[in-house]
Amino acid sequence: MGKNLSKRSEDYSKWYNELVVKADLAENSGVRGCMVIKPYGYAIWEKMQAALDRMFKDTGHENAYFPLFIPKSYLSKEASHVEGFAKECAVVTHYRLKNAEDGSGIIVDPEAKLEEELIVRPTSETIIWDTYRKWIQSYRDLPLLINQWANVVRWEMRTRLFLRTAEFLWQEGHTAHATEAEAVAEAEQMMNVYADFAENFMAMPVIKGTKTESERFAGALETYCIEALMQDGKALQAGTSHYLGQNFAKAFDVMFATKEGKQEYVWATSWGVSTRLMGALVMTHSDDNGLVLPPKLAPIQVVIVPIYKGLDQLNAISEKVAPLVKQLRAKGISVKYDDRDTQKPGFKFNEYELKGVPVRLAIGQRDLDNNTYEVARRDTLQKETVPNDEVVLKIEFLLEDIQRNIYRKALDFRESHVTSVDTYEEFKSVLKNNGGFISAHWDGTVETEEKIKEGTKATIRCIPLEAKEEKGSCMVTGKPSSRRVLFARAY
Amino acid sequence: MGKNLSKRSEDYSKWYNELVVKADLAENSGVRGCMVIKPYGYAIWEKMQAALDRMFKDTGHENAYFPLFIPKSYLSKEASHVEGFAKECAVVTHYRLKNAEDGSGIIVDPEAKLEEELIVRPTSETIIWDTYRKWIQSYRDLPLLINQWANVVRWEMRTRLFLRTAEFLWQEGHTAHATEAEAVAEAEQMMNVYADFAENFMAMPVIKGTKTESERFAGALETYCIEALMQDGKALQAGTSHYLGQNFAKAFDVMFATKEGKQEYVWATSWGVSTRLMGALVMTHSDDNGLVLPPKLAPIQVVIVPIYKGLDQLNAISEKVAPLVKQLRAKGISVKYDDRDTQKPGFKFNEYELKGVPVRLAIGQRDLDNNTYEVARRDTLQKETVPNDEVVLKIEFLLEDIQRNIYRKALDFRESHVTSVDTYEEFKSVLKNNGGFISAHWDGTVETEEKIKEGTKATIRCIPLEAKEEKGSCMVTGKPSSRRVLFARAY
Repeated sequence: MGKNLSKRSEDYSKWYNELVVKADLAENSGVRGCMVIKPYGYAIWEKMQAALDRMFKDTGHENAYFPLFIPKSYLSKEASHVEGFAKECAVVTHYRLKNAEDGSGIIVDPEAKLEEELIVRPTSETIIWDTYRKWIQSYRDLPLLINQWANVVRWEMRTRLFLRTAEFLWQEGHTAHATEAEAVAEAEQMMNVYADFAENFMAMPVIKGTKTESERFAGALETYCIEALMQDGKALQAGTSHYLGQNFAKAFDVMFATKEGKQEYVWATSWGVSTRLMGALVMTHSDDNGLVLPPKLAPIQVVIVPIYKGLDQLNAISEKVAPLVKQLRAKGISVKYDDRDTQKPGFKFNEYELKGVPVRLAIGQRDLDNNTYEVARRDTLQKETVPNDEVVLKIEFLLEDIQRNIYRKALDFRESHVTSVDTYEEFKSVLKNNGGFISAHWDGTVETEEKIKEGTKATIRCIPLEAKEEKGSCMVTGKPSSRRVLFARAY
Repeated sequence: MGKNLSKRSEDYSKWYNELVVKADLAENSGVRGCMVIKPYGYAIWEKMQAALDRMFKDTGHENAYFPLFIPKSYLSKEASHVEGFAKECAVVTHYRLKNAEDGSGIIVDPEAKLEEELIVRPTSETIIWDTYRKWIQSYRDLPLLINQWANVVRWEMRTRLFLRTAEFLWQEGHTAHATEAEAVAEAEQMMNVYADFAENFMAMPVIKGTKTESERFAGALETYCIEALMQDGKALQAGTSHYLGQNFAKAFDVMFATKEGKQEYVWATSWGVSTRLMGALVMTHSDDNGLVLPPKLAPIQVVIVPIYKGLDQLNAISEKVAPLVKQLRAKGISVKYDDRDTQKPGFKFNEYELKGVPVRLAIGQRDLDNNTYEVARRDTLQKETVPNDEVVLKIEFLLEDIQRNIYRKALDFRESHVTSVDTYEEFKSVLKNNGGFISAHWDGTVETEEKIKEGTKATIRCIPLEAKEEKGSCMVTGKPSSRRVLFARAY
């Protein structure tokens, strides 16, 4: 197709890396591990943000903004939290540069050393709970339902565009509640919001569940998650929602007066999704020809390419196309008419396939004569000729049908990649041959989990919420187990 | 009024600091110089962002995202640029913490020292132009019109909420052009976009002009600005747009092939506004009773307060109010019905005055009997009784009228605070007694500008675009001058 893209079947990882760059989503920067999100990629992220932000507001949350920097002592206040983040954080130690006295250039001014080092936030629980102490006095101040859109930094050693970067963009919700039950309900609600977004906007089926103790967020009592399956059979954690109990309230001394006048610690949650979702979006739907975008998140939903020789023909086509563009825009459909004279139609077709534009219209002299358009859908690459007076309806149908179809396709793939096994041999064999999620019994210990991870690189992705009670025995140790959990190799 | 707010006439600065905190806009955090933007303040900022983002997109710009960190060597590549920012920047030197071996707690791991220090971006010209080198090869790649919404850090020693903070939120546009004329036109266009936004959304009149050489952005050949006047007679720079010539293209080696096949350096602009605008908004309109917000940026445009005794009366009022709320929302008007039973009406009136809600409706038993509402406008505090069937029209009128009225009021204030003077004595006297902008002749030298600044704390805010040629002599040195410039003390 002239896109010079690796094939998924040959090198999935290479295909992904090439596609992200060639489709103008993102690229590596001159700063180790930090990416540049290019305009086309950022436009998709903006659509994700807008949909999520609406869902957060509809569930009563407000946005706010907290400092980028976290004093080292704050991070240390919650023991498991600092344990989880200290090993990979960017540390600000000075606040000034100066000219070296030996003329060798600009150096850090040793006299401008901070009294206390500042950590670039890897997540904001500590700075936010330090603030909540001032905001919460009484039950009247609860619940406090806040979200922040921000950049965060985790000093990852091995990075990949969108999937694992030193700096990434995300949202982090931080809520405070008067009761344990309310906090748990909030954490569950936000997991459901994420699942709703993943399935209805990203067209990406997910499995909801809870994490095992060793996979929990640093400082959480329970981590709810949504897990998706990529086309190479590896899982991807697409969003997490944490029930934090009173850990942060105790670490930052946040108490409230109950209706009865008693002083109690506040109950907390936090939840987040990040630009990692961009990687999940690419890997769920795209093919060897390029991106396949769900219409609800596509920056350009419809592109119209004129096929012409000479200016007269172009003018006739442009005149025909103008009212259609207007009509589509009035319906809130994002449409681009690409009449550039610097590129040929074949080049444009390739480009929009690569960029995953859901619907492509082409119009040439024969279409002018017959009063038709050639309409192509990106997901199946099917083309058909559509009469002018049916084209708007056809486009509306296609935008809905593509959204439905790629979800269905991803769901079929996922369903054919969940395997139940009862022995460790079977487990290893499925991992090797088919990949995907493996449903198996496990004895509930960290030791066995660790042993499986070392032996196979597979981890427990979640204990599915819908898992039924089922008596069984651990595939590794033979010890009793009361339900199956989902394993997979994961991003 | 029970708000316990300082009076502007007594201590303007104290009034501002108190108001920002009491109206729930922002507060200081535990991190030196970094603020927390609270939900109500952030909601105003979101409205500003939405309006600006729309204007940027309407003028052909796209959003993207570049790294938070800038390698020290990048900053050094443009000489005047590093000079301008090196003295106040946050420097990341390490990437890990660890437990101290003596058990004294968490310390910076000396073995995790970065080879090259990273600067937390004070502005992104360098990292962006390092990227543009890869994006720009030919005239076909130009113009490149990009904007970024981001946080930046400048290590200010004396900070004030919104006006001067170590970390702030902003947008920064960075464009690349094939010709000097096009770049200059872009810089001028964006100054005009900012002026349009300031006047039509913030209801804040501004003077457009250019900066003198010593007030220019570090690395710019020309800085266009919009200057506003606060109620205490001090000026505030509300937005800047820079024509950067080929400085950054040369520093980062960004060349393009012209249509004729020649290699030339690219021409650049950058432009930005920040959360500083929040401070300008507060100081332009607000009064001793609290915030006064322009309806176009008010998170809550209309609040309805029921005045009742007992649940039966409240229910009757709520039933009456429900269709009105629905009708207003259908018109895109943001309305809140505050039926909290934990606070009295007087408390609520105070709260919404403090928070600058443009229109307040009250409804009690007498209004129920008479089929009326009491309607109060925040800008003039005038109240009137309005029949139910006229209330929607009245609200629509008020939202427009308040927007117009506060602009007019601010403009009247500004116009009565521009004074022309011809001697330095007069200049000092006006500064002392009236403040505001002072229009005077200046000999065009940095020395005289510096002398005036040292003697009076007044700086040249701008050379107004509309300044007419006028022969005169410098008020300080008597040397010839061809036009008046605008001086003021400034934030």
